[in-house]
Order: sequence, then C-alpha cells, then structure tokens
Amino acid sequence: MISFEHYTTIRKHTEYICSFLQTEDYVPQPVPFVSPPKWHLAHSTWFFEEFILKKYFDGYAEFDSDFGFLFNSYYNTIGKRVLRAQRGNITRPGIDRIYEYRQYIDSHMEIIIQLKSGDPEFRNTLALGLNHEQQHQELLVTDIKYILGHNPIFPVYNEAIDWESVREENTGFISVPEGMYDIGHTGEGFSFDNEHGTHRVFLDAFEISAQLVTNSEYMEFMEAGGYANFNYWLDEGWSWVLQNDIHAPLYWHSIDGEWHHYTLRGLEKVDPDAMLTHISFYEAAAYAEWKRMRLPTEFEWEAASSQFNWGKRWEWTHSAYLPYPRFRKPEGAIGEYNGKFMINQMVLRGSSCATPQGHSRNTYRNFFHPDERWQFTGIRLVKL
Amino acid sequence: MISFEHYTTIRKHTEYICSFLQTEDYVPQPVPFVSPPKWHLAHSTWFFEEFILKKYFDGYAEFDSDFGFLFNSYYNTIGKRVLRAQRGNITRPGIDRIYEYRQYIDSHMEIIIQLKSGDPEFRNTLALGLNHEQQHQELLVTDIKYILGHNPIFPVYNEAIDWESVREENTGFISVPEGMYDIGHTGEGFSFDNEHGTHRVFLDAFEISAQLVTNSEYMEFMEAGGYANFNYWLDEGWSWVLQNDIHAPLYWHSIDGEWHHYTLRGLEKVDPDAMLTHISFYEAAAYAEWKRMRLPTEFEWEAASSQFNWGKRWEWTHSAYLPYPRFRKPEGAIGEYNGKFMINQMVLRGSSCATPQGHSRNTYRNFFHPDERWQFTGIRLVKL
Amino acid sequence: MISFEHYTTIRKHTEYICSFLQTEDYVPQPVPFVSPPKWHLAHSTWFFEEFILKKYFDGYAEFDSDFGFLFNSYYNTIGKRVLRAQRGNITRPGIDRIYEYRQYIDSHMEIIIQLKSGDPEFRNTLALGLNHEQQHQELLVTDIKYILGHNPIFPVYNEAIDWESVREENTGFISVPEGMYDIGHTGEGFSFDNEHGTHRVFLDAFEISAQLVTNSEYMEFMEAGGYANFNYWLDEGWSWVLQNDIHAPLYWHSIDGEWHHYTLRGLEKVDPDAMLTHISFYEAAAYAEWKRMRLPTEFEWEAASSQFNWGKRWEWTHSAYLPYPRFRKPEGAIGEYNGKFMINQMVLRGSSCATPQGHSRNTYRNFFHPDERWQFTGIRLVKL
Amino acid sequence: MISFEHYTTIRKHTEYICSFLQTEDYVPQPVPFVSPPKWHLAHSTWFFEEFILKKYFDGYAEFDSDFGFLFNSYYNTIGKRVLRAQRGNITRPGIDRIYEYRQYIDSHMEIIIQLKSGDPEFRNTLALGLNHEQQHQELLVTDIKYILGHNPIFPVYNEAIDWESVREENTGFISVPEGMYDIGHTGEGFSFDNEHGTHRVFLDAFEISAQLVTNSEYMEFMEAGGYANFNYWLDEGWSWVLQNDIHAPLYWHSIDGEWHHYTLRGLEKVDPDAMLTHISFYEAAAYAEWKRMRLPTEFEWEAASSQFNWGKRWEWTHSAYLPYPRFRKPEGAIGEYNGKFMINQMVLRGSSCATPQGHSRNTYRNFFHPDERWQFTGIRLVKL
Repeated sequence: MISFEHYTTIRKHTEYICSFLQTEDYVPQPVPFVSPPKWHLAHSTWFFEEFILKKYFDGYAEFDSDFGFLFNSYYNTIGKRVLRAQRGNITRPGIDRIYEYRQYIDSHMEIIIQLKSGDPEFRNTLALGLNHEQQHQELLVTDIKYILGHNPIFPVYNEAIDWESVREENTGFISVPEGMYDIGHTGEGFSFDNEHGTHRVFLDAFEISAQLVTNSEYMEFMEAGGYANFNYWLDEGWSWVLQNDIHAPLYWHSIDGEWHHYTLRGLEKVDPDAMLTHISFYEAAAYAEWKRMRLPTEFEWEAASSQFNWGKRWEWTHSAYLPYPRFRKPEGAIGEYNGKFMINQMVLRGSSCATPQGHSRNTYRNFFHPDERWQFTGIRLVKL
Repeated sequence: MISFEHYTTIRKHTEYICSFLQTEDYVPQPVPFVSPPKWHLAHSTWFFEEFILKKYFDGYAEFDSDFGFLFNSYYNTIGKRVLRAQRGNITRPGIDRIYEYRQYIDSHMEIIIQLKSGDPEFRNTLALGLNHEQQHQELLVTDIKYILGHNPIFPVYNEAIDWESVREENTGFISVPEGMYDIGHTGEGFSFDNEHGTHRVFLDAFEISAQLVTNSEYMEFMEAGGYANFNYWLDEGWSWVLQNDIHAPLYWHSIDGEWHHYTLRGLEKVDPDAMLTHISFYEAAAYAEWKRMRLPTEFEWEAASSQFNWGKRWEWTHSAYLPYPRFRKPEGAIGEYNGKFMINQMVLRGSSCATPQGHSRNTYRNFFHPDERWQFTGIRLVKL
Repeated sequence: MISFEHYTTIRKHTEYICSFLQTEDYVPQPVPFVSPPKWHLAHSTWFFEEFILKKYFDGYAEFDSDFGFLFNSYYNTIGKRVLRAQRGNITRPGIDRIYEYRQYIDSHMEIIIQLKSGDPEFRNTLALGLNHEQQHQELLVTDIKYILGHNPIFPVYNEAIDWESVREENTGFISVPEGMYDIGHTGEGFSFDNEHGTHRVFLDAFEISAQLVTNSEYMEFMEAGGYANFNYWLDEGWSWVLQNDIHAPLYWHSIDGEWHHYTLRGLEKVDPDAMLTHISFYEAAAYAEWKRMRLPTEFEWEAASSQFNWGKRWEWTHSAYLPYPRFRKPEGAIGEYNGKFMINQMVLRGSSCATPQGHSRNTYRNFFHPDERWQFTGIRLVKL
Repeated sequence: MISFEHYTTIRKHTEYICSFLQTEDYVPQPVPFVSPPKWHLAHSTWFFEEFILKKYFDGYAEFDSDFGFLFNSYYNTIGKRVLRAQRGNITRPGIDRIYEYRQYIDSHMEIIIQLKSGDPEFRNTLALGLNHEQQHQELLVTDIKYILGHNPIFPVYNEAIDWESVREENTGFISVPEGMYDIGHTGEGFSFDNEHGTHRVFLDAFEISAQLVTNSEYMEFMEAGGYANFNYWLDEGWSWVLQNDIHAPLYWHSIDGEWHHYTLRGLEKVDPDAMLTHISFYEAAAYAEWKRMRLPTEFEWEAASSQFNWGKRWEWTHSAYLPYPRFRKPEGAIGEYNGKFMINQMVLRGSSCATPQGHSRNTYRNFFHPDERWQFTGIRLVKL
C-alpha cells in the first residue's frame, strides 16, 4: 500500500536533485537524448495528472490546458506533443510555474490517494507513476551532468557527491553451473512489464567476474592502442570511433598528459582504482575482446547476481533488448511504456549511483543504444 | 565627441530590451543564426573589454578569464571561442553574473572615456563599440521574437509594442533620372567600413515605388498560387520552398481559414493594410517576378532614398553583398568585422522598427543570406 | 572433397546471372548497401586470389596489383580499400578486364585444387570461398533488381524468372512441444562460424504457421490503415515510416488504383495469392502486431523447421543477430567474416528464390538491419 | 545562316569527345554536379527534339516517349524529370540506344534545317541548341576528368591532350583609365540572354595583370601557410576549407613530398611554370588577399579584355551572377535557361582549354558556386 508520505518522499527527491541548479540550468537540451531539467520536473508530474487525476478524481480541473501538449513525452495515444528535439526552446512556462504545477498536482494526489488506495488498479498506476518519476530522477542527474559537463568552464553541481570515485572491494571469478534458471520478476513488489513473464532459460556453465573493470584496467586498453585497432571493435562500433573521433570514455580530457574527467564535483584527476564509467556498449565489447573475454548475457547476469555486489554502475550485457516469451503489451497508452523500444538497444543490468534507492532489483532491465554513454555504465566480464 | 552619458543611454537600452524577459528566456539558441539573449548581453560587453579596456586602461584587471573564450563571436584573431551553434548550452555564468560583468565594464568605461576622449583612434573604437551594441540590440529583439514565436503557447513579449501593424502613407512611383550618382558614406558621423570609399555609379533612369508592399498585396500573390508555381522563383529559392514546405511568411499561421501571425504582443490576425514583413529574399524576388516588376539595386535605392520614407522594414535589394571599389580591410581583429562575410548574401537597405534610433542612415548596408527572414524585412518594387 | 568441376559450376553460375545484363548495368551503386554487379564479379574472385592463391600457389603472380585495393570489401586486415559508398564511380577496370581476371584466377585454381585438395585447411578455405561466392550470387540478383527496379522505365531482367508469384501449398499451424532443443550446425558439410557451437536452448511450447503471409493478407493490413497507425509499430519503425514516407512493400506502385510491383520480368500486377516479399523487419513486426500474433525466435524457427516447407523467402525472426554461446572469432582476416556484424541486425532464417541451390540449411543465419528490404524477405507467424 | 554542315560539325565533336571512353565510363554520376557522359549525349539531343522538331517538323514522331522524362535537365515547364542526383543509376537505355537517338534526331534535323532556315525564330532556337551543345561539350570533358580523376588507378583519358601544362607568355600589368564603358553583347553573332542589354558602367582607373597566376606562384601561397591562416579567407571559404580538409587545388596529390596532379593524360608532376587551374572562388579570393591584390569585377575584365590574351582558363571575377539592368526573362521554357540561376554564384569570364572553338566571346558570362572547382578555372589579379 503506497501512502501519501511515500509519494511525497519520492516527489521531493526530484526537487532535491534540482536544488543545486540555477534557473538557467533548467532550460537547455544540448542533444536530443538529453532533456531539460525543467521538462523532467513537469513531465513526471504530467504523468500523474494524465493517468491518475483525469481518470480517478471526479471533477478534476486541469492545471493548464497547454501542459498536456508541452510535457507529454512519447505517448502517441494522448495526442500531439512537442517534438523531442525541441524541448530546449520552450522557455515558458518558467520554473516557477512548473513548481506551482507540481504543488497543484501533489495537493490533488493527497486527496485521491486517501480515497482510492483500496482500488488495485489505482494502486498499480500509482506505483507505475512513482517508478516513472524515479526513472526520471536518474535521467535528471545524468542529463544535468551532460549539460554542465559540456560547459567549457566545468561548473560544480554538488561538492558533496562522490560517485565517480567508487571502488570495488571484491576480486576473482564466480563459477555458475550449467542448468535451468528462472528468469524474470516474480515477487510482490513493483516491476515493469518488460521483466514480467518468468520463464526458464538453459545456461551452460560460466565464470563471471566478481568485480567491475577499473579505470586503470581500461587505461591499459587505451595505452595498448585499443581505440586505434579495428580488430577489437564491432564494425558499427569502429565507424562510431572514427566518425566521432572517440579516444577515451565520455567526460575524459587529457590535460598536460594526465587524464582528468568531469565529475559532479567539477574537473578532477581520474582515480585509477575507481570503477570505470561512461563507456558505450561498443567500448565495453571492444575492451572485452581485447581482454579475450566477453560480456555476460542478461540471463547469466541475473542467474549470478546474488553472488556479487552490484548497484554502482549499470552493467552492459551482450543481450539485445527484446520481449520475453510471455511479454504482452498492455492496452492503451501504458502499452507504449516499454514494448515499442525493443529494437536496436542493448540490455543493461543492475543499477547505478544515480539510481534512487529501492528503485532497482536483479530482474530490472535497463536499455540503451550501443553508442550511448552518458549513464553511469560499467563493465563486468565473463571468461571465454 | 561621445560622452559617457551617450554611452550609458545606449548600454541601458540593451538592458531595457531584456527587461521584459524571464530568466529562462535568456538561455536558448533554437537555431544557429539566433543567439541567446544572455549571449548578446555578454558579447556586446566583451567587445568593450577586448578592444578598449585591454588596450587603453592601464592596469586593467580582466573581469573573468573565461569570458573571452565564452563571448567572443567570430574574431578568429582573438583565440579560441565557443562554437556558434553551441551557445545555448552554456547555462553558467548565469544572468546575474553577466549583469555584474556589464556593471564592471561600464564603471571602467566611465573612467576611460573621461581620460581618452581626445584620442581619435579611441573615439573611433568607442563609436564602433556602440554601433556594434546597437546592431546587437536589433538582433536581440528579433532573436527574442524567434524564441518566443516558436513556443507553441505564443507568449507575449511586450503588449505595448506594435511593430507588425505599421502602415504606409505614401502611394505611387518616383522617377529617378539617368545619371552618375555618388554612392557611399561621406559625412562626419559614424559609419561602417563596408559603406566607405564613396564612388560614382552610373544608373539608367528608373521608377521606384513610394510605398512598401502590404500584407493584402502579398496575400494576392499567395492566393494566386505564388508558392506553388516554380516560374516565379529562383532555382535555389524553389528548392528552399519545397524542402522547407514554405507557404507563407515567417510567423504566419492559418487558423480556421484566417491568417494570423505571431507578433511581439502575441498571436494576432494579420492586418491587411500593414506593411508585409518577415519574408526572405527568395520570396521578395518571387513576388516581384509575379508582379512583373523587380527589386531595386542597392545603388538605385540609395540614389532615390531621399524621395520616400523608409525606416520600418529592412528592404531587400537585388544587389549581392560585395566590397565597394575602394574597400580596404582594416588590419587586425577589427578587419574581421565586415569583409569576410561578403559572399552569398544579399544587401538590405534602410532600417526597421527594431533598429535603435540614430543607428541607420541611407548608406547603411545590411546583409543576410537569401533564405533568412527573421528580421523585419520588406519589399519595395521598381518598374521593369 | 571439392572438385574443380564443382568449383566451376558455382563460378559459372555467377556469370550466368550476369548474362542478362548490358555493360552499363554492371556499373552503378544507387545506394551504399547495393554494390555494382561488376564489383561482385571481381570481389568474389579476389577472395580466391587473396586467401588461396597467395597462400598456397608457389610463385603465384598477382593478376593486377591494384585489384586488392579495388575489390577488397571489408577486410581491414588486408589493407586499404575503396570506400563502400564509392564503388559505383570506379569505371575502370572495365567488364572485359574483370572477366579476364576471373579466367586467370580460375586457371590457377584448377591447378591448386588438384595439388592441395588433400589439405584440410585448404579444403576449408576453398569451401568458404565458394560459399562466399554463393552469398554474392544472391546479393548480385537482388542488387540487379534494385538497380533496374529504380529505373523509371522498369527494364526487364529476364522474362523467364517468376520468383515474385510463388505460392504456398500448406495451411494451418504446427504445434511444437516445450523442451530442450539443440541449436546450431553439427553435420559434415560446410557451415559458417556464426552457426557453430551447438548448444541447448529451452523452449516453451508454441504454435507456428505452416504457411507464409500472402500479398492479399498483407493488403488487408494496408487497407486497415496499418501504415498510418503508430500502435502497430516499434518506435524506430514508426520514425522510418514517417521519414521515408513508406506505405507499401518495396517495389510496389499504385497505378490507377491497382497495386503493381516491379519484378525481374518487369512491372506486373501484384498476385494476391503469392507470397508477400520485400518487407522490412519493421513491417513484419507491425503486421504481426496487427494480427495479434508474433514472429518466431530463431530458435523456435530452427526447432520447427522440419515440419514446414521453407526456401522461397528469407523469414524475419524476432531474434537479434548475436554470437552463440560457443562462438569464437577465427584468427586473422577470416575472423572479420561474421563476428563484427553482430550488432543492430535481426536474424532471418531459411533461404529465398535467389539463394543458389544447396547453399542454405536449417541452421543458416542470415541477418539484415531492421529497415532493409531489398532481399526476398517474408513473414511467418507464431500464435501469442 | 547555320548550315547543316555547321550543325554536323558541332554534333560530331560531342561524339569525338566520347570516342576515348569505354562503355562503363558513360554511366556514373559521382557527385550531383557531375552528370554521366551518357546523359550529356542524350540531353543535348533532347534539346533539339523538344524545342525544334516537336515545334517545326510536321508529323514528327517522337523517338521514344520515355526520353523526355529521362533527359530533360531542369526545365520544370516541360514536365516531370529524373532527379538531378539520380542520373547515374539509369543504366538503360544503353549507349547504343542513345547513339541511335542522336542519329534519328540528326536525320530529322537535316530536313528541318533545309526547310526552315529562312525563319528567324527557328534560326535563333537552332543557334541556341548548338550553343547549348557546346556548353555541354565543355561540361562533358570536365565531368569525364572528374570521373576518371577520382578513380584511385588514375586512368588516362587521352595521351594527346596537354591542357594542364599551358604556359602564359605575357608579363606585367595593364592600366585601364577611369571612364564609362559599354558592357554586354551587341554584335551580330549568337549570344546568351544573360549578356544582353548593353549598358553603361562607370569604372575607376585600375591596373590588371597581363598574365594568369602560375602553379609556382600558388605553391608559394601554399608554402606560406595559406590554407592554414583564416585571415586570407572569406568566412564561408574558411568553413569550406575546414569541413572538406582542403589543402591544395583539386586533383593535386602530394607523393613523396612532390606535388602531382591528375591530368587528362594521367597522373603527372605539377609543372611550376604552367597556369594554375582547378581552384575555387574561395581559393582565388584567398590567394588575392595574401598577395594584397584583388580579383577584377566582371566589368573591369570586359573593359580590359582586348589588351590581354585569354581563353585557357575560366577566370574568377569578384562579381556575383546577377541580371543586367535590361535583362528580361524570355517567355516559356527557354526562360528557364539562365535567369533562375542568378543567386549565390560568381561570374567567370573568358573561356578555357575545354571550351569548344568559337563558343566564347569577351561578353560571355559563365557562373559557378564559390566552392566549385572542377572546371579549368584560373586567377587574374588587379592591384589594390
């Protein structure tokens, strides 16, 4: 049962993330896949208005009739929306108006949660709305990092956040025996439709690393000419390297011969012992090839996940993001949540420093295109 | 002699233009040719710091060493600069810091103007800096119009500004006789290098309209299928129409069968009797072709200009922007001001509602690419 | 044991395919994924020169030192090569010279096959070369169809080929029980590295159609507004539809309200009872969604394949092209054959009318990007 | 009076140019501005069919109803046409069929020339058709050079052609006094509409070089870092240099530290004393800037042209291609010949090695975009 307190805790966290911003930081969309912080604040709120208040709150008066149009993300079912690439040009409504919007929705949500919490369908949609907000919290932080990290003066977001220097305690490899494994979510708590439909997968025996790849290990690959040797790369990965002149992870800068990277605390030297992050699938796969190992499949990862620590980096798997055998697309707009993105993306498992507490689980399937690297991604290897 | 009062009047006008903005409006750059208002505020200030204070003010302490990099526009001579298309992503320094920058520079300028106003070269650079600021005032307004005018909720910039409804009083054609005409600037006041080097041009007799084309006249062209008939268009103009699906001037929207346009006061019905504006050179030339007339050359315009009213719309001429016979590029960074843009652009003469008072004259040469139309452009015809 | 006769039979078939061409048809590359027929003729020959004659033929004299550069396809290991998108501009060497090249290589191959046929590694490379040639025979036909089919006068390739009107005899669905299935190639004959490493896969019970989708079935989808309703489409599929203005399979043209399509015999009316072809994965998946069914996985397809007829259309599966658990990339240039393409592509199973006889088997894994449709692709459905 | 003999002489010259080609060379269109030789052969023939035979020849039977569609170049008035960028994919009709087309048209032209040569309008159109064919002869050679010159094996077109090594005999500067000059064509012979309407232009005195810039002079500019210093370049020229990585004229290759260039005789060392060619307007203007001189206007060029030799290189002027004061666009399709291209192009004066004899005159206005350089262009300077 989700209480209004729980609702409030999650909603306030979104605003806490933004509390370190200046008004100007809320506005830009430097590349299509990064949304303005302002937009995240409004869109996650719109979700509750559209899918809960309009449906369950008798006589609900819309906050502003333009907002559906402005802050719908990709639900074609709900009507027209601002093109994804143009979110950064919409300066008004301003921040103040968007915070008013949040308050207005929250005050109505307080009432409706009290009235309807006995209705299972309501509870499901509420849980989805809060998990949706948490997904946007993670994107909010990584989008803020992208915006500030591409400013040539490298502004500090928050001195107190130390996510880029996380180190791993474990070592060695874990052996997982051949067998049938149950894959997918079964428990009581919330989960997304893309992890439903538990099914059996047969796996050969494999050995998976207990630790993530570190910066120093990756620098060995770089020093060995990893970015200059096509042999390690997928063909489209190699084109990506050449066309974008890639020669280091995202946010890395070589200054006077030493590697620095932009962190949420500003520009810092790269800590060799910390977990590598901000690499694409192409880089993860090339590193594995160079190391004569491979990435785990998402099934191997799930089968082994209880035996290692995870939760600091989203871990690239070598599985494409495809429907599970028992996946059924829900009816209506909610059906657009996951299913339609199941093409040309790779699965990531685990969660990252930027993931809100309690938001992940070992069946959670995250997914990105193989060239995307602005999330806190990482590499775990399996022996060939 | 330019007094500090005069300097202050001009500088304050820039801030007045911005006084109608919310902080968020200062940030975006929706297309490369539109700059963030924030950037205009800083760049026009940087010009005084770079070309005056660093040169003339003994012991001048730079306000912020990053600002040269961030707010240089196109002076390659001065070193690295932020790529033009990425100005909208630089959220920090924020607005407050930029207003501090303006104050800091102004307080130093007060001192240096008193000390150096006897030095002719100083006076010239000061005049250039103020004219530069005035050019950016015009761009500031038209860039703001572009940003707000592409917001689907069409925000009001300032209810009190009524520039789109200006009407023309004159009628008929003016005859100008064959003869030699002196072209270019000769007087005492400030002028740009691109209008220097008075020279003689021989002109055939011609008849030029005393009035600009109105919205209703242009709507006749539209209703006659002007946008659907390649015969009226230059070949590259026709490609522009097809590729961009152009079928009306910029900011025009057909709502329930009636033409509206975005104005600085919000969305309004098009006034048929007002002067047409926001058309490209391609549209101006196609309209002239349809009307079986032509656009004037910039020399014809200048020769006839004393006989008609001008000053509400920048008027497209049929002259390419090229150096005058006696044009010499100044040495150093100032040499990049005008000369290097003399290719693939057409000359506009006159000035517009958005031009600061006293900034134009009948020898002033403005210039834009033939597809650009976010300035307050207009059409004046000459008989074939 | 591969005899020179067998070698010759395959090599001659390539030339037979080209016997219906005019010299001009050999030259163009209308889009990057279609190669000039001329290039196929030379590249398949170069493969034998590079990987067999240079290695096994003592004192072998290269036919022409430029050819390695001109006709290498994607083997980065072998050195520089002409960019893939520029193959259509290389008019010389001409066709005659390329046929000379084929003769020269064939005469040397005759000798080396006699000498070395006892060497297992030689035999493997020879088998690979011939299977490679057969792969290019299929591409040759489909590339020719693309070139002629995009000529507004729709030339006939060969009146005698009737591939677009193939009909299916079977009906109904086949039930396959839950269980462990062996996947991958085990037999004696040739197979590619991407199908090696037999492994067990657990499958739930499923029902798969005994017949492929027909033109009339697909036309129902079209008439039901299939191309206009985003609900049926993957998100990137929907963008593909909008950006490319797709509203029918490739080669289809609506003439006076009736569907025609370009066939190798010229423009013909679409036969409603024939097997649908030339659809992308996006279209196959949208059709399945509309039909409330799904595409099979490649494992389901392989497990069921003995129970239905296949071989006229490459059948899209809902499996991404990824390495099998026991896949190991071979050393050297041959290692570039398959592995590096295992990203962003979907698996097709079966074979098509254009596949040379004896070239396919039920473990064969073909693969294309989800938007590609110039192969003879088809759709087989599985019940939800 | 144009005789059929004269007609034949010109028509045969087109075929002579092609006599050095292999069939494959007739097909490709490597970039949109280069047309397939095959297309030139057919298009110049189509012009006679469309504008003469269909109009003047009673009962004329069209050779092939597809040809109007396939070989119309840019006359929107005449109906649909193949998109300019797709000419290289149209392999059929083949060369043989196109030569048949030429014969068919020529045999009908023989008759109609005898019948109609007394009709002045017929004579004008015939003259236009022949001048049109001559324009395409020049493009034919330069397009062939482009096709063969971008083949990595650098095939020889014709050993006997020595156009790249032409040297200049003259030296020094010619003084031209201030005054009124008559500009434009007046004589009896053929001329294009863009040079009509003689008009008076007032010119200041100027000094123009009697010789064209040589390879060695240009190499000085290169060695002085001309391609690396933005100061010499127009702003869009500098972007062109950076985006296309330009560091030498077209066809130049540095081999073992020595400059070679592709010529119609194959790859040769650059002759330092020969006239420079294959430079863009951007390069011409940058060279002039570096030399502290300027390019002539087209009026200066015309006024001075009787005092120097010209005819080996098309000479870039600093004039934009715009209508003369008395220019009137002819009615109908012929009106599309010149006028619609009068934007974003610069005027070249003179003629080149590739210009057919008798085709040019000192009032002829050629025009290209400022980045185009596949014609035999050159540089003549004027003192500042």
